[in-house]
Amino acid sequence: MKSIASYSFLILGMSLFTLFLSAQSSSDLSDVPVSQQFDEDSLQIAELFRLSLTEGSSYDWLGKMCKTIGPRLSGSTQAEQAVNYSFDLMDSLGLNPKKQPLMVPVWKRGEKELAFYKSANGEKNVLNILALGGSIATVDEGIYAPIVEVETWDDLKTLGEEGVRGKIVFFNEEMNKENLYTFHSYGHCVMHRWGGAVEAAKYGAIGVLVRSLNLRIDDFPHTGSMKYDDGITKIPAAAISTRDAEKLSKLLEEGDEVNVMMRLMCETLEDKESFNVIGEIQGSENPERVILVGGHLDSWDVGDGAHDDGAGVMQSLGVLELLQKLNYKPKNTVRVVFFMNEENGLRGAKAYKDYAETSTEEHIAAIESDRGGFTPRGFHVDGNTSQLEKMMSWESILDKYGIHQIEEGGTGADIGLLKTENNLLIGFVPDSQRYFDHHHSANDTFDTVNKRELELGTASIAALVYLIDKYGL
Amino acid sequence: MKSIASYSFLILGMSLFTLFLSAQSSSDLSDVPVSQQFDEDSLQIAELFRLSLTEGSSYDWLGKMCKTIGPRLSGSTQAEQAVNYSFDLMDSLGLNPKKQPLMVPVWKRGEKELAFYKSANGEKNVLNILALGGSIATVDEGIYAPIVEVETWDDLKTLGEEGVRGKIVFFNEEMNKENLYTFHSYGHCVMHRWGGAVEAAKYGAIGVLVRSLNLRIDDFPHTGSMKYDDGITKIPAAAISTRDAEKLSKLLEEGDEVNVMMRLMCETLEDKESFNVIGEIQGSENPERVILVGGHLDSWDVGDGAHDDGAGVMQSLGVLELLQKLNYKPKNTVRVVFFMNEENGLRGAKAYKDYAETSTEEHIAAIESDRGGFTPRGFHVDGNTSQLEKMMSWESILDKYGIHQIEEGGTGADIGLLKTENNLLIGFVPDSQRYFDHHHSANDTFDTVNKRELELGTASIAALVYLIDKYGL
Repeated sequence: MKSIASYSFLILGMSLFTLFLSAQSSSDLSDVPVSQQFDEDSLQIAELFRLSLTEGSSYDWLGKMCKTIGPRLSGSTQAEQAVNYSFDLMDSLGLNPKKQPLMVPVWKRGEKELAFYKSANGEKNVLNILALGGSIATVDEGIYAPIVEVETWDDLKTLGEEGVRGKIVFFNEEMNKENLYTFHSYGHCVMHRWGGAVEAAKYGAIGVLVRSLNLRIDDFPHTGSMKYDDGITKIPAAAISTRDAEKLSKLLEEGDEVNVMMRLMCETLEDKESFNVIGEIQGSENPERVILVGGHLDSWDVGDGAHDDGAGVMQSLGVLELLQKLNYKPKNTVRVVFFMNEENGLRGAKAYKDYAETSTEEHIAAIESDRGGFTPRGFHVDGNTSQLEKMMSWESILDKYGIHQIEEGGTGADIGLLKTENNLLIGFVPDSQRYFDHHHSANDTFDTVNKRELELGTASIAALVYLIDKYGL
Repeated sequence: MKSIASYSFLILGMSLFTLFLSAQSSSDLSDVPVSQQFDEDSLQIAELFRLSLTEGSSYDWLGKMCKTIGPRLSGSTQAEQAVNYSFDLMDSLGLNPKKQPLMVPVWKRGEKELAFYKSANGEKNVLNILALGGSIATVDEGIYAPIVEVETWDDLKTLGEEGVRGKIVFFNEEMNKENLYTFHSYGHCVMHRWGGAVEAAKYGAIGVLVRSLNLRIDDFPHTGSMKYDDGITKIPAAAISTRDAEKLSKLLEEGDEVNVMMRLMCETLEDKESFNVIGEIQGSENPERVILVGGHLDSWDVGDGAHDDGAGVMQSLGVLELLQKLNYKPKNTVRVVFFMNEENGLRGAKAYKDYAETSTEEHIAAIESDRGGFTPRGFHVDGNTSQLEKMMSWESILDKYGIHQIEEGGTGADIGLLKTENNLLIGFVPDSQRYFDHHHSANDTFDTVNKRELELGTASIAALVYLIDKYGL
C-alpha cells in the first residue's frame, strides 16, 4: 500500500520530465519519506523511462529488421543478414561488437504444407497446418490415414498399438485458460509438440498432428521445435490451428472416421556456421564483472519474428543505448548478447556458455528478454534468498512504471546455462495475455508490436541494470 | 514487497482452479500469514478470475455487437439496435432490465470527407481526415485555403486576425509521449479538438484541421466531439491523421504556402428519443443502497466502437454475470447501466443523474469502465481519505491479478455527475499504452480486443464490487 499523497503526486498528471525537474526541488518532494539515495535513483530511473518513450530506438531497429529482413531461422540467408545488421547496429553505438562463431542446424520447411480431410460427400476441407521444426517430410504424395485423438501420454498407452498403428495421432490438449500467467499453460502442453512424434511412433503411428499452442480459437497454426529419438522410427509431425483442431475433434466426437491427408516437404541439411553477436560497455571499475542482457536473434520462419524474439534483442541493445544517453558509466561491464539458434538447438547459448566457463570474467547477473514486446509487469528471478530480497526491495522504485511482479521463477533458455552458485539470472516478464496469439505463427509480425510497450520494456531492464550495477547483488 | 515464499506459492505454477481447491486445505496455505477472512475473500476472488477466463461472456457479447451491429452513434439505427440487444442480454440474465428514455442529438457524417493539398507541380495529395462530431458541413464544393499551423491558443493570438483571416487553422499539438499514463496526454491536448473551431473563428478562420489525438504516426484520423459557441461564427472542423499532420508541418517548415481543400458533408438533425439500458441484482439486505457499474453504449460512427466503449459496457454486464455464477448474493443492489450518448452530449449521464437525485436510493459507489478492453492495472478513485485507504488496503488481495495501481484520480464522464459528499466514484484503469492507437478511429475494431485481457477486466471490477458490497466503504 502506498501513501496516497506521495503516490498520486508522483504519478498523476505529471510528465516524467516534469517529475524529473520538479523532484530536484526538495520542497516538492518534502512529503515523500525516502532517503536522498532513493531520490537520486528515482531521478535517474525516471530519466531512463523518459528517454525510452521519447528517444528509444528499440522499436525502429525492430521494424527495420522485421520489414527488410523478415523471419530469421538458423542457417537461413535472413539469419545471416540479421547477424550483419545487428553487428552494424552495435558498431554504430560504439559497443565494440564481436561475432562469436558456432555451428547451427539447418532445417527448411520447403514447399507449403498441404492438409485436408474429406467430408462424407467427398468434399475436401483444407486444414491449416505447419510442419514442426525438425520434422521429416512425408512422401511426395503425402500421407492419408485415419486420425486418432489423444490428450495425454496415458491416452496413447490405453489405445495401444492396436488403436494407433497406421494412423495419424492427433494430440489435442487445450492450453489451460485458468492460468493468469500464460507461460504456465504453455509449459504444460509443450511436451506433446516436443515429444509427440517419438511417443506416437512407438505405437506404430505414421504421422502426428498437434493442436497449436494458442489460447485463442483461430486459423493460425503455430510451429515449434520437436525431437526424434535414436532407435524410434521418425514420423512427420505438424501443428494444426486451434479452430481446425476443434473441428476435427467435433467430427470424431460425432463418431465419424476422419481421414486426413498431410503433405510436408521439409528437409534437414548439413550444419552451417552462424554467430552470436555481442557488444558491450566496458566497466569503469570492474571490467571483469559482467552484467549480461540478451535475447535471441533467430526466429521461426513464419511471420517476421517480431515478438519472438526480435523484441528481446532490440530491447537488450536498447538498454545499452539508454545507459549511454543517460551518460551513465557502469562500474561493471554491461554486455548485450544476441544469441543465435534458441528456437531449434540452443547452439548460441551453448557456445556462449563454453566461452564463459573458460573466461576469467565473472557473470554476476544475466537478464533475458524473450516473452514478447508487451507492456512490462516484472521480473522472474533465479538466485539466492538475499539476492531475491534485494531485487524485491527495488519494487518500490519500479512499481510506478508497471513493474510490480518480482518473483522467483524461470528466467530464460539462453541464459539458463550461465547459472553459477553466486550469480543471479533474471527473466524480464511483460504482460503475457497476448503472447500466444502470436508465438511461432504467421501472426508474429511487427504491426502487432506497440512502440510504447516495447520501449517501456527496454527502460524496465535498463533500470534494473542500473540498480544492479550501482548496488551489486 | 511480498514475502518470497507466500507470493511465489500463490502465483507460480498453479492454475487458479488449483489454487481454489488447494487453498481449502489449511496445510497448503499454512505459510500464508493472513486471517481467515482474507482466506475466504481470496478464494472468492480467485474463483471470479477463474470464471472470467473460462466462462466469461463479455468478449462474446462484445463480438456479436461489434460484428452484427457495428458503430453506434447516438440517434443512429445501430444505436437503437444496440439498445434492444443490450436489453435482451440483460433480460436473458434475469436482471429485470429497463429502458430509461432521453433525447439525444443526431449528427450525421454524410458523404465521406475529402481533403487534399496540391504539390508545387499541381499534383493532388490526399489527406486522411474525419469531420469532428458536431461540425457543420463545408459548402458543397469544399473550401480551399492556405493553412496556418499553431500549437497553442497563444500562437493564435500572436498570429492575430491578420495571420488567420480566410485561412484554415491547423492545430498541430503533438500528444506528450512522456506521460506513462497516456490519458494525461489526452487531457492536455483535447482542448484544441473541443474548442479549436471557436477560437480560430474569432480570428476569422474559415476552417479547422486538428492533429489526431494519437501517440503513433499512422494514417487513421481520430474524430471526437467539438463545440460551437453562441455569437461566434461556426466553421467546419476535422481531424487529420498524425502522418498527414507531420507532412503538412514539414511542408510549412520548408517555407511553402500550403493550400488545403477540405469538404465535409455532415449535418445536425432534430434530437431524437433514445435510452439508457439498466439492469440489476437487487440487494438482499439493503436494496436501496446501490453499487453502480457501467460504461457507455454509444460510440463514434467509425470502426465498431469495440474499445470505446463496447468493452466497458460488456465488462459491466459481465460483472453481474460473474457474481451470479459465483452464486454471490449481494447485500446491496448491484446495478449495471449502459449509458447512452457519452460521446457527444452526456445526455444519458444527465438523465440518470436526474433520476438518482429524485430517487430515495443511495448510490454508495459507482464504477465506470471506459478506457478500453486492455489488461487490468488498477482503479482511479474519487472519495474521502478513509475510503481511499480502504480501497488501497485491498491492493494486497488484488495485486496478484495485475491490479497494482489504486490511486486518486479522475473516474469517468458518465458517473461524474453522481458524486455526493459520501459516496465513492471509481474508474477502472486498464493498461493505457495502446488505447490511443484505436480511440475514435476506424482502428477501434473488435479484432484488436484480446479476450483474456477483456475478461480479466470484468473480473477485476467484479472483485471490487464483491469487496465493496461485503465490507462497505
